[in-house]
Amino acid sequence: MRSIPTEEYLVRQDAGRRLAADAGLDGLIAWSRGGSSQDGYADVYYFSGYYQHQPRVPDVPGMWRAQGHMAFVLPVNGPATLLTDAGIIQDPQPVADRIRTDADLVKALAEEARVSGGGRLGVLGSPMLAWPWWTDLRSALPDHDLINADHLGWRLRRVKSPAELDLMRAAGAVGVRAMDAAMASAVPGVTEAEVAATAIAEIVRAGGAYYGMGISSGDASHTFAPSGPGTASSTRRLDEGDLLRIDMYGSMEGYLFDFARTRVVGGNPTPEQREMLDAVHDSVEAGTALLRPGARLADVARRCEEVMAASAFARRHGVPESQMGGAWGHGLGLSFEPPWITTDTDETLEPGMCLALERRIAIPALGGVNYENNILITATGHEVITPATPEYLG
Amino acid sequence: MRSIPTEEYLVRQDAGRRLAADAGLDGLIAWSRGGSSQDGYADVYYFSGYYQHQPRVPDVPGMWRAQGHMAFVLPVNGPATLLTDAGIIQDPQPVADRIRTDADLVKALAEEARVSGGGRLGVLGSPMLAWPWWTDLRSALPDHDLINADHLGWRLRRVKSPAELDLMRAAGAVGVRAMDAAMASAVPGVTEAEVAATAIAEIVRAGGAYYGMGISSGDASHTFAPSGPGTASSTRRLDEGDLLRIDMYGSMEGYLFDFARTRVVGGNPTPEQREMLDAVHDSVEAGTALLRPGARLADVARRCEEVMAASAFARRHGVPESQMGGAWGHGLGLSFEPPWITTDTDETLEPGMCLALERRIAIPALGGVNYENNILITATGHEVITPATPEYLG
Repeated sequence: MRSIPTEEYLVRQDAGRRLAADAGLDGLIAWSRGGSSQDGYADVYYFSGYYQHQPRVPDVPGMWRAQGHMAFVLPVNGPATLLTDAGIIQDPQPVADRIRTDADLVKALAEEARVSGGGRLGVLGSPMLAWPWWTDLRSALPDHDLINADHLGWRLRRVKSPAELDLMRAAGAVGVRAMDAAMASAVPGVTEAEVAATAIAEIVRAGGAYYGMGISSGDASHTFAPSGPGTASSTRRLDEGDLLRIDMYGSMEGYLFDFARTRVVGGNPTPEQREMLDAVHDSVEAGTALLRPGARLADVARRCEEVMAASAFARRHGVPESQMGGAWGHGLGLSFEPPWITTDTDETLEPGMCLALERRIAIPALGGVNYENNILITATGHEVITPATPEYLG
Repeated sequence: MRSIPTEEYLVRQDAGRRLAADAGLDGLIAWSRGGSSQDGYADVYYFSGYYQHQPRVPDVPGMWRAQGHMAFVLPVNGPATLLTDAGIIQDPQPVADRIRTDADLVKALAEEARVSGGGRLGVLGSPMLAWPWWTDLRSALPDHDLINADHLGWRLRRVKSPAELDLMRAAGAVGVRAMDAAMASAVPGVTEAEVAATAIAEIVRAGGAYYGMGISSGDASHTFAPSGPGTASSTRRLDEGDLLRIDMYGSMEGYLFDFARTRVVGGNPTPEQREMLDAVHDSVEAGTALLRPGARLADVARRCEEVMAASAFARRHGVPESQMGGAWGHGLGLSFEPPWITTDTDETLEPGMCLALERRIAIPALGGVNYENNILITATGHEVITPATPEYLG
């Protein structure tokens, strides 16, 4: 059921202890969000292989607090404890020296932190730790220093193990299958929601998780997605000639794919659409060609920018505004993570890193296109794990 | 595209202003989570009809902060402002006097709060406001009192409008269709993941959102779900005679369904399974029969407990442990919300309230069953909006 062997979790815990000690900390506290959410499980799941599906509900004093979350206490010298509010856990069990079940996760975390020894603790998962819980944790631990240590989690997960790389490949393969099925289904008269359903069903059937999607088409293709909480709340029907763009993310055993494709519905691109499609495709591919151990990520971003600037699209319409503050992508693993692919980063690539390299153009009068791939850095070069199907590259 | 008319959002904003004034506040700040998550959009979406799909990524100083979130500033005396980091928003546009786009949502919120007039602000959505953002917000507003006011959001949304009730009915109908399709697909040899995919595809095709699911079967039916982040990470194959339980939540235009069913795969329940199924079914139905305006929710919970205690299952095995701290369910709308259905609540029902009434039994040696419905309180009684299909009631 679990592709990562138990031994590897213990190696991760030891690495976490070492990193904490090197940073002058007495231990780490990891805090994560479960409850069917897909954007905050990385820290606890990385150490323990555990994700809690019980949904988050508002705190009720005396009954429960921080439902749908999970925590992990990892002292530099001492046993690792997983905290959850789930009473009965399906096999395989979390990898931890101890499991503590408590309906009040904040109180339980404070107690475990107190007995863990040492007063300087690094906290991983700060974006998932809501202000009221943080405030209560702080007052329950008046003699402790709780220090934001999210960067330590990213550092631990930056280079993937062989088992992790296999899961990244598995995720990419499922994602590509889902995207191909969705794009093949995108004929005139079909709705965006139906296209999305085709993709999502493929992911879930394979045992994966659907995380999210930016989908838009036609007159609205320059937007990221509809403004409702629907998975794809638009039941807009596709027309012949529409641009349809999908940026989709999901996971296998927690390891993410995150890539994007664009197609022209039911036909061939107009010359104008062709120029947009070529601009995103060629710039992303040009950056990809540079990915190898030792390469500087800033050079990759610069190459992407050069090719974008030299594109027929940019020559005609000007260089399109960036959609991500100038970043051409990011690290990928159990979450969207550093490094950011920017011209001012000082990151150098290493084997075992995973990147999402991407570009979106969004021009109200013209439309929107998207192109993104997931790429592993290998010992000698790179491996694109989300290979593009030529038929709908545009 | 939006079933709630613009006028109704303005009515909500006015009601929010009045409630804030009555509480001695100068205004409200609503903070919500978007980014494809489904468990924290209620407060901003309620006021503005806006949900932001761009996913959350870690903060990068100088580039962005709190991506994938949205905020709404509602001064008692002054214009309502929506804050988002999405540059181009698909129609229909959010309902707000002003829309401000900023890549740093925390800085922008502090600035808007500062100019909103008055120094006492109620904060809605505290579980979505992470500690680092809260800390920065506090230091940017040293002269302001920021007060947790989640209860005001729940109070505003407690009684639904006719348009909201129609969306609750639409959500229930889609949920039931999805559950029926899933249960019909649950024959021996099919995997849990395939069953889940059938349900999810039905929800998404209809333009709805899939939120989450607790699914388990056979030997693991007493657990809530697998311990991985997969939508249904178990690719366990169903066997003839397995208990299969599904607790599923999703939404139409943000309005949730949340209900549960159990079936025996490929055949009839054993006498032992029959007793478990009857215990959850009969106790939930007995409580449901009491739902009407003026009814006291504590009486409903007590009736559920009496029928559970008198069941053949409880007589043979003892009263099963509660899975929700003694609660028989909760309020429902744009999120899982108060009131909690407990024997010690002093809540009295009103027309326009929506409840999820539920029970799960989880006994390691015996298995697990689940039964839950969503019910509107009408002018004279109640309306079950997730009617159960007898074929798989068990």
